[in-house]
Amino acid sequence: MNGAESLVRTMVKGGVDVCFTNPGTSEMHFVAALDRVPGMRCVLGLFEGVVTGAADGYFRMKGTPASTLLHLGPGLANGLANLHNAKKANSGIVNIVGQHAVYHIGYNAPLTSDIEGLARPMSSWVRTSPDAKSVAADGAAAIAAAKSAPPQIATLILPADTAWNEADGIAEVPAEQQRASYSPQAVEQAARILHGDGEGTLLLMTGSALSEQGLALAERIAGKTGCTVMGPTFRPKMARGRGRFSIDRIHYVIDQALPMLAKFRHIVLVESDDPVAFFAYPNKPSMLKPQGCEVHRMTSWGENSVAALEALAGAVKASARDVKPQALAELVKPTGALTFATIAQAIACAIPENAIMVDESLTTGRGFFPPTAAAAPHDWLQNMGGSIGFSTPLSIGAAIACPDRKVITMVGDGSAMYTIQSLWTQARENLDIVTIVFANRIYQILRGEFDNVGAGEPGQRANDMLRLDRPTLDFVALAKGMGVPGRAVTNADEFNKALAEAVAEPGPRLIEVQM
Amino acid sequence: MNGAESLVRTMVKGGVDVCFTNPGTSEMHFVAALDRVPGMRCVLGLFEGVVTGAADGYFRMKGTPASTLLHLGPGLANGLANLHNAKKANSGIVNIVGQHAVYHIGYNAPLTSDIEGLARPMSSWVRTSPDAKSVAADGAAAIAAAKSAPPQIATLILPADTAWNEADGIAEVPAEQQRASYSPQAVEQAARILHGDGEGTLLLMTGSALSEQGLALAERIAGKTGCTVMGPTFRPKMARGRGRFSIDRIHYVIDQALPMLAKFRHIVLVESDDPVAFFAYPNKPSMLKPQGCEVHRMTSWGENSVAALEALAGAVKASARDVKPQALAELVKPTGALTFATIAQAIACAIPENAIMVDESLTTGRGFFPPTAAAAPHDWLQNMGGSIGFSTPLSIGAAIACPDRKVITMVGDGSAMYTIQSLWTQARENLDIVTIVFANRIYQILRGEFDNVGAGEPGQRANDMLRLDRPTLDFVALAKGMGVPGRAVTNADEFNKALAEAVAEPGPRLIEVQM
Repeated sequence: MNGAESLVRTMVKGGVDVCFTNPGTSEMHFVAALDRVPGMRCVLGLFEGVVTGAADGYFRMKGTPASTLLHLGPGLANGLANLHNAKKANSGIVNIVGQHAVYHIGYNAPLTSDIEGLARPMSSWVRTSPDAKSVAADGAAAIAAAKSAPPQIATLILPADTAWNEADGIAEVPAEQQRASYSPQAVEQAARILHGDGEGTLLLMTGSALSEQGLALAERIAGKTGCTVMGPTFRPKMARGRGRFSIDRIHYVIDQALPMLAKFRHIVLVESDDPVAFFAYPNKPSMLKPQGCEVHRMTSWGENSVAALEALAGAVKASARDVKPQALAELVKPTGALTFATIAQAIACAIPENAIMVDESLTTGRGFFPPTAAAAPHDWLQNMGGSIGFSTPLSIGAAIACPDRKVITMVGDGSAMYTIQSLWTQARENLDIVTIVFANRIYQILRGEFDNVGAGEPGQRANDMLRLDRPTLDFVALAKGMGVPGRAVTNADEFNKALAEAVAEPGPRLIEVQM
Repeated sequence: MNGAESLVRTMVKGGVDVCFTNPGTSEMHFVAALDRVPGMRCVLGLFEGVVTGAADGYFRMKGTPASTLLHLGPGLANGLANLHNAKKANSGIVNIVGQHAVYHIGYNAPLTSDIEGLARPMSSWVRTSPDAKSVAADGAAAIAAAKSAPPQIATLILPADTAWNEADGIAEVPAEQQRASYSPQAVEQAARILHGDGEGTLLLMTGSALSEQGLALAERIAGKTGCTVMGPTFRPKMARGRGRFSIDRIHYVIDQALPMLAKFRHIVLVESDDPVAFFAYPNKPSMLKPQGCEVHRMTSWGENSVAALEALAGAVKASARDVKPQALAELVKPTGALTFATIAQAIACAIPENAIMVDESLTTGRGFFPPTAAAAPHDWLQNMGGSIGFSTPLSIGAAIACPDRKVITMVGDGSAMYTIQSLWTQARENLDIVTIVFANRIYQILRGEFDNVGAGEPGQRANDMLRLDRPTLDFVALAKGMGVPGRAVTNADEFNKALAEAVAEPGPRLIEVQM
């Protein structure tokens, strides 16, 4: 077998059996190998940002890496923004990036570029395979890196001749690392803090702590000790909805985040980091905790936070009896105009059991949490790297990882346009994804920031860079162009109806919410 | 004035007065400065690949750099593929990339990444401005780098606090370098080669040699000495059409390129490089020249090739009387089915005087050169870096650089989808661009390469990665979604009619050629 086949067989044997692809000439031997070797599901994206975002979504829902197939430096470059988001989400991905044959690189053909240089900023593991006999072992090492704790973006660069030359066979992927445990000392310290100053303590949780089980344990601890539980502004995945502990997130807007944290004298970090502002602003702090607040780490990313929370609950003697009832919003279908409140309420009513909510709603969605806390149980996925255009690709990977669950993507019109090509892959694979586009026809988050700059009303040139209303984007036409049925809604009743139908029907649907 | 304003004023004074933008929060002080300072035209793209590709097109037609405005590492990353293409075209661009405030970078906020690391592979000049008082001088240095000979991709990283803090004023851009001259010795050597073995010599020309003037001089030299004149497979810009010397390009397909070059004993390079294969293939050479062929460089990129050709014409005593008549195709509007030949003929008939042809037609366009040699005079622009998705953005920059000329973009359906967001900017700016999409519903170039791999007929998984027919892309709907009127054509008569109307009407139009 050639190098390409040895790599594909190594990947399938190593449990990497989904490949999100946008291949080119130099990857044709790899494509031919994919064709020959059974067991790999290949999903084509029309743009590489779709491919890498899908791999992120797959990992978040499946917990095990998918691979990507990208064409040389520029193909990788097109996928970097969503690799950035994936890296910040601690998702594991195996990127296979084609390269010229080793002996051809020096000739500086048009597509030649510094692929390793491009890969490093968004990858934790980068290797160029030197020859066909190394490819299988390099692939196994990439898989091991992607599956490590914490998981990694692993980028394996595959020169064309290493794909077409004769290989030595398949390589074994090293046994998976056990999910790391936790530090009993750190739990004891957290328990001491909660005993001493429960009311003044914030349990700031993310990662595995935001599973249904982790949240349930935190709810008991909060009920017993009077501490507050929050998540960071953005979280890779969080269990939400009826019967689950509903927690606040630190507000994105710094002037609202600071008062949320002002009362705390202690922050206990559960996989999260000491909270920082998303951006810096003149004369405002970068760190969000109040002066004098002490920060203690209970678990790091990749540690077993559920076990740590269980130990902490034991240490503070918290049990199910300590849980305080939650005041949940009433789920009533809204009527009338589309406002932030009616949009949130309509979505909360429409969420089906076990849905996967992919949230890139930005300004429109800042109030989505309170009403959806009362919705049917679901998972809620957010953008960890801040590079917009993550949600429509992410939903592809989530839908492929969980074919029996409905995915609902909530995205602003500006964000949706970065990776709009996602809709085509959703149609091609007939994925159960409802894409809700909030069409306010402005980069509203930037309009707010322009105000913060204190430059007054934007003039023509600034508006030219902020407003999306000239011409109006027609998302129903865009969806039609890519084979996804869509409809536009202009009031809450239409939105309720469109949501109910889209959720009930299999396959992809798009709803343009005209605000 | 603050750093942002000092930079904008420096840019406008330095002749950089078009900014292709996709800004974010960290660039709002820069946006506010653009709003206050007159003289900068701001053109918004919905995706950064549109922005950087437009800057490439602007430089190619205007000969002077535009700027881009990009949001942090991921925004730059999204623009890298077309920066790669621009770099390979020797286009000058001033990229302004926002960064967190200097003191905020260490906190590893979600959007933090290694921006310099991302910039280097596709930039020849990279600098992070350290403080507001340095920003103007750094901007001037970036402009000087972009305008140097050969021109450069210059990337200036602008931490937010260097934009909002107080600056020292405007900086002067150093006087432009004169376009380098040429080496009289190299011209004498070329003349000796042509005297000794005219018939066995190939003049391989690109860059400034492909201007109307350069081609006219080469035509005389060829007529006098019997040498052959060709261009590389791809050229940044070439004068073509009636009354201009029509030259062949080295074929993209290596098996056709090798026989084209087989007879030459000498290659004289005029700004071009020793020809190399686009990709490597098993048991095929990387270098395309025949064994024993000697390669001589007459001019390098950035040298004055027109002057060198003039000197060479003088040295070989070539004059207008030596020009051999060219056999041009007859321009007759085609009828019947859409074939490669009828498509080419229809386009040749429709090209208006002084049009700018942007060519990303790939497999469909391989026969476009012979018939269009007889068309009205025009410029022909091609992809220099091989990263697809270059043409629809490039056309934006070309149209803005030359508002009195019609731009015709020829693009395959697969390529068009990488940066389809370009259509919206074309509509927003009401640019005179006709986009012709060749909808063969397959990555045909890869289908051909799959054959080259010798893997037989592609099976299901391979077809899943090559074919675009499930679902069918509807480019008329996509164009409508972004405010561009479009129509689909299915035979040559419809295509003739659609072309004539689109060329006659102002503003953007799209034609989907259903093959």
